[in-house]
Amino acid sequence: MKIGIAGVGITKFGELWDKSLEDLIVEAATKAIEDSKLTKSKIDALFIGNMLYGKLANQDHLGALATSLLKINCPAFRIEAACASGGLAVHLAIQSILAGSYENVLVIGAEKMTDYPSNEISLGLMGAGSEEERQAGLTFPGLYALIAKAHMQKYGTTKKQLAATAVKNHYHASLNSNAQYPFEISIESVLKSSSIVDPLTLLDSSPITDGAAAIILSKNVKKGDVYIAGSAVSTDSLNLSERQSLTQMQATQDAAKKAYSQAKVTPSEIDLAEVHDCFTIAEILAMEDLGFCKQGEGGKFVESGKTRLEGSLPVNTSGGLKACGHPVGATGVKQILEIAQQLKGLSGKRQVKKAKVGLTQNVGGTGATSVVHILKI
Amino acid sequence: MKIGIAGVGITKFGELWDKSLEDLIVEAATKAIEDSKLTKSKIDALFIGNMLYGKLANQDHLGALATSLLKINCPAFRIEAACASGGLAVHLAIQSILAGSYENVLVIGAEKMTDYPSNEISLGLMGAGSEEERQAGLTFPGLYALIAKAHMQKYGTTKKQLAATAVKNHYHASLNSNAQYPFEISIESVLKSSSIVDPLTLLDSSPITDGAAAIILSKNVKKGDVYIAGSAVSTDSLNLSERQSLTQMQATQDAAKKAYSQAKVTPSEIDLAEVHDCFTIAEILAMEDLGFCKQGEGGKFVESGKTRLEGSLPVNTSGGLKACGHPVGATGVKQILEIAQQLKGLSGKRQVKKAKVGLTQNVGGTGATSVVHILKI
Repeated sequence: MKIGIAGVGITKFGELWDKSLEDLIVEAATKAIEDSKLTKSKIDALFIGNMLYGKLANQDHLGALATSLLKINCPAFRIEAACASGGLAVHLAIQSILAGSYENVLVIGAEKMTDYPSNEISLGLMGAGSEEERQAGLTFPGLYALIAKAHMQKYGTTKKQLAATAVKNHYHASLNSNAQYPFEISIESVLKSSSIVDPLTLLDSSPITDGAAAIILSKNVKKGDVYIAGSAVSTDSLNLSERQSLTQMQATQDAAKKAYSQAKVTPSEIDLAEVHDCFTIAEILAMEDLGFCKQGEGGKFVESGKTRLEGSLPVNTSGGLKACGHPVGATGVKQILEIAQQLKGLSGKRQVKKAKVGLTQNVGGTGATSVVHILKI
Repeated sequence: MKIGIAGVGITKFGELWDKSLEDLIVEAATKAIEDSKLTKSKIDALFIGNMLYGKLANQDHLGALATSLLKINCPAFRIEAACASGGLAVHLAIQSILAGSYENVLVIGAEKMTDYPSNEISLGLMGAGSEEERQAGLTFPGLYALIAKAHMQKYGTTKKQLAATAVKNHYHASLNSNAQYPFEISIESVLKSSSIVDPLTLLDSSPITDGAAAIILSKNVKKGDVYIAGSAVSTDSLNLSERQSLTQMQATQDAAKKAYSQAKVTPSEIDLAEVHDCFTIAEILAMEDLGFCKQGEGGKFVESGKTRLEGSLPVNTSGGLKACGHPVGATGVKQILEIAQQLKGLSGKRQVKKAKVGLTQNVGGTGATSVVHILKI
């Protein structure tokens, strides 16, 4: 597989009170089109990942909305898989290029979350999980806290290791002017912040964010272009209680295995990664499930500093979901954009040196959907 | 393009008070899998078209929900484009097969509409249109009434011609035990039924429906299998007021042109069609936009009887959206299923004789999205 990334565009992530979803779509997509130097008539199809706009703003049919806003006349598709909506939009856009149907495809991930009452957002986000979980009164912090507790009990993972993940991601965000929280925090501040659901604190948790990211995928790959060499999706039970294990995400393991095989690389050849750290424990699981360290050693791996910018495998150089922000439908597209910019050497203060191969992992719910992409230059 | 239809399954359409969306998904998909004689492990991916379940029932992430319910372990995608969600799910499933990524793909269209307050349904459906239209107080009957008025003024189309469309579709539905309204009606009863928005009456309008349909698409096409020979999507402005014409759907014309070219057929070679008659005027426009008659002559064409079961080009043998019912996310998949069954000679009392080539047209909103498929045997 060799699908080129011909252009990228991103908005500021954060509480953008003066911007609508429509504004965010136009800003990110216009930047991506300008970056690609393609004329609009060369865009053959549009995919948009979004979870909540139908529910929160009563606006569905976002494919046609986006083509209308951008004044592009092409087939358009909205893809939804909760927080994995963006990653799945990229995967399906790739399929349409591989099929030979479209040459240049615009993929947008976008979410507007901050103009709505917080109970609507909380309820809306629970749509990513199962009815049984909602009826049991579980929330996403609650579900991930169960995962964290199980990991701590089985492997001795510590709260300090969870905190180290957030500290690293805030450090990276401090070097990213588009990040929602571009400042550093300390281990102590994480441990002392409000408990959400034990063992997770406020600073173990990703925020509510507005933002959009866009990329243009292309059949044509020129020398020096970043390209996607692997794209795989896998699913698991929607209900956490039906999984075989609480301490691994089978869907991530399966998707990673397929993506590594497609890209013909092993975990040890990955130079940097963007992973789905909706809560700090999720990044620790990702380290294990993606094969970067052994099962049970994710906490130590993060604590060792290997995944910091100057380490051997920088993870979430954007700041991750934790500190760059998590506009749910945008996240999967933003991850690809971050890796693409890194591989091209355009990441400024947070540039990873000599990176040639990058990976993204985007998760829906508590791991019912996982999508892994591998990028090369 | 040659994508086989390896199996189909459908539920009863109607007010199914005792069935949840989950029940409908399982029933239609299980029937399709049984019909295909494939084991579940041979299903490589799942696509589901649905518009409203996130909004009405707070359940998103329907791809993973469906794989969980069906106990199938495969990549899963929810596609949404208002009432064209089902047709777009089929189009994207085809892309994934053409890409070489998946061999056998289960496509489900499903919608549960009748267990919710009618104001929530009305508001929800307006998510298919533009914010300007909602703010202007327009509803979908209102928008289609504007289209009907314009067509009547420009071409002399009559209320009786609109009514003839509904009468024909109810006649077809009277031969379909899965239809929501399996009984005949008269021209007089349409004209005398409650006015919704002049010139459209209650019996010019498709109903609120629960239902699901599923098909299995396959790379492998055996002799005697029905296959998809053309699949094309096109978009237009979301806002009706920004269209070049009120009396044509440009997106349908564009999608049809591409699909005819892919399938190497002309409109005159189509033996039967399922079109998007959300209101009677929409079927009249479809006749023109698909090239079955000249612009402006759709009313006369329907009135002539040519599109009745015994006519030269039977249209909406299922009963159409009007009388078979319109569970919005299911409609695009049901249309393909109806044509596939007809081409295989399995349509019983409503069988079209010697049909070899069929067409489906599925519309989102007032024509911001249109998707056309052409099937052959």
